[in-house]
Amino acid sequence: IHSKLPNVGTTIFTRMSQLAAETGALNLSQGFPDFAAPAALCEAVGRHITAGHNQYAPMTGLPALREQVAAKVATFYRRQVSSDSEVTITPGATEAIFCAIQAVVQAGDEVIVLDPSYDSYEPSVELAGGRCVHVPLALPGFSIDWQRMHDALSSRTRLIIINSPHNPSGALISRAELDQLAELIRDRDIYLISDEVYEHLVFDGAQHVSVLQHDELYARAFVISSFGKSYHVTGWKTGYVVAPPALSAELRKVHQYVNFCGVTPLQWALADFMAEHPEHLAELPGFYQGKRDLFCDLLAVSRFSFTRAPGTYFQLVDYSAIRPELDDVAMSEWLTREHGVAAIPVSVFYQSPPKDLRLVRFCFAKREETLRQAAEKLCAI
Amino acid sequence: IHSKLPNVGTTIFTRMSQLAAETGALNLSQGFPDFAAPAALCEAVGRHITAGHNQYAPMTGLPALREQVAAKVATFYRRQVSSDSEVTITPGATEAIFCAIQAVVQAGDEVIVLDPSYDSYEPSVELAGGRCVHVPLALPGFSIDWQRMHDALSSRTRLIIINSPHNPSGALISRAELDQLAELIRDRDIYLISDEVYEHLVFDGAQHVSVLQHDELYARAFVISSFGKSYHVTGWKTGYVVAPPALSAELRKVHQYVNFCGVTPLQWALADFMAEHPEHLAELPGFYQGKRDLFCDLLAVSRFSFTRAPGTYFQLVDYSAIRPELDDVAMSEWLTREHGVAAIPVSVFYQSPPKDLRLVRFCFAKREETLRQAAEKLCAI
Ligand SMILES: CSCCC(=O)C(=O)O
Ligand SMILES: CSCCC(=O)C(=O)O
Repeated sequence: IHSKLPNVGTTIFTRMSQLAAETGALNLSQGFPDFAAPAALCEAVGRHITAGHNQYAPMTGLPALREQVAAKVATFYRRQVSSDSEVTITPGATEAIFCAIQAVVQAGDEVIVLDPSYDSYEPSVELAGGRCVHVPLALPGFSIDWQRMHDALSSRTRLIIINSPHNPSGALISRAELDQLAELIRDRDIYLISDEVYEHLVFDGAQHVSVLQHDELYARAFVISSFGKSYHVTGWKTGYVVAPPALSAELRKVHQYVNFCGVTPLQWALADFMAEHPEHLAELPGFYQGKRDLFCDLLAVSRFSFTRAPGTYFQLVDYSAIRPELDDVAMSEWLTREHGVAAIPVSVFYQSPPKDLRLVRFCFAKREETLRQAAEKLCAI
Repeated sequence: IHSKLPNVGTTIFTRMSQLAAETGALNLSQGFPDFAAPAALCEAVGRHITAGHNQYAPMTGLPALREQVAAKVATFYRRQVSSDSEVTITPGATEAIFCAIQAVVQAGDEVIVLDPSYDSYEPSVELAGGRCVHVPLALPGFSIDWQRMHDALSSRTRLIIINSPHNPSGALISRAELDQLAELIRDRDIYLISDEVYEHLVFDGAQHVSVLQHDELYARAFVISSFGKSYHVTGWKTGYVVAPPALSAELRKVHQYVNFCGVTPLQWALADFMAEHPEHLAELPGFYQGKRDLFCDLLAVSRFSFTRAPGTYFQLVDYSAIRPELDDVAMSEWLTREHGVAAIPVSVFYQSPPKDLRLVRFCFAKREETLRQAAEKLCAI
């Protein structure tokens, strides 16, 4: 069989979670919480299943949930979007990204991705017949290098994918950067995917700047988010896309045949919970900042060096002072096998990783007890 | 925006369900049950959500559910498949079909589909850069026309999609037809998708013949089924693919980036229910045959003519004696608006519908009361 994705193996997230399970290590690799989802949200699922909400949802998503998304967008980003023509519920943000790429990328098109970047972007572009052009973010702050962005543009550039808060670094895009991006692509036939799945995980009083707040960019953008990340239920695989009507229409054509619709009782439960618990999203930054600070405070006496993540539930740490001779893949395995804490290497998010990269990523979406145990092991190295 | 799917509109299933809702008609159009899912299955979801099974499932599916699928395949089709390397859980059969197509269809490839055919096949093939070659099934029995199949083959044929029990007709593929198919594609580089989502809905003592029972065909096949159809939960969007290891590996590469994984608590619940209630699948043919026979017995005094569906939960009826001047789209709308029963026109499943086609499809996955009310309205015409 002639492979369509010859370079693809099992994702690093699956591999490290498996290694953690095999070795009994604390799993701080793949990003997911190890604590309970809100009880009211969980109970709502049972209620809707019992009520018989078990058949196909509308292809675009349950109206009540689309309305909650529109209301949320109005509250957080002061944009009025139509829940009918601009909001689409998808079975996870990954599917949303895939469908958005399929909707606009034609054979031969180029797509600019900013490395380090999430691992689904490139294969999704390849399946659409396109080609990724990788532009590395500038270290150490993972900010956009405008000269390289400019150089990467060509007449074939059809799409740019940005991600803020940024996985794996936690970096946030600023309003000034969005303005610069708008200027860069003005008068060009280029679409934008803004992967904002960690939109509510921003710390130290910073505000997430959404493409939804930027009229010029939103006009050509798919803004993608995830209920899994915001409600502690990554295994529910429910996300959404907000995009102008014409883009939403094209995305829906693809989604209609990739999957048809999301899971009905989960959509009902999320709609109820969002309506009844608006405080949940407001409390998320504080909730996760507490976890980040606990973890970082404990790691302060370790030999790892780091600056605290401005967003996401990931913390990068530099291990140059510990095992500089190991590359980050070897380091992640060593941490897992020898020290009982699984991590994700950062190089796997790059097409061409910087040669001297000595960073691994820990997920701090964990119970206090887990974070304390992990920090204890890491401080003993 | 330059559309990737310029010919695609909203599916007929969405449109007819919407028209049914707007007009208050009984909805016998889109295929889904209007009765409750098994109580034990519903309760299991709540149990697993409370137990905290809310984070990412393994990309290939929960091992316990893959093992249940392997056990089921052994029981029903006497094939031993590896739950590790041959079974993949997907968020619905539609996604399974999409990923299988993406895994094997390259730009310029041809895919043979047998009309009438499910509406997701063609756009999925187009998104992979392929082209569908439509071969009509022979009327009135919807059997394969081997001469036309043979004529449709070319050096670019890469994939054939078959579907048994067949939506919309209910026709079943026989063992002799599978043998003939094997002969047709022997020594050619052609894959097979066997859409068997209605595998357990076969009537009058007939047995579903699965590609899983055919060694030569299975060696190049993706066999796809749906928990939604078999467990009365179409809105749970959970399906599976059984394919030989090399094909499963390619399908998983695509699935990994289209969606990553199915919904965790639903997979746990299905695994429990399958283990504890093996009688459920054994009872399905009788359960649905009762519904088919009730509906058909009541329609016997109507002016519709029909032969009872051998499989699926759909019944085709010919309306030539009623409004022969209406095409089937107009007839479906007329039935919905004027007589309060929504149906699906059959022509939409064709690239080139036969000119004299006067068939509409009713879904009989409905409570006795719904079927009686619908039949009463239909007999009054
Ligand atoms: C879909 S598994 C990956 C989860 C995740 O987003 C991450 O760990 O970066
Ligand atoms: C995904 S909606 C279509 C349901 C169905 O399979 C049918 O009605 O034919």
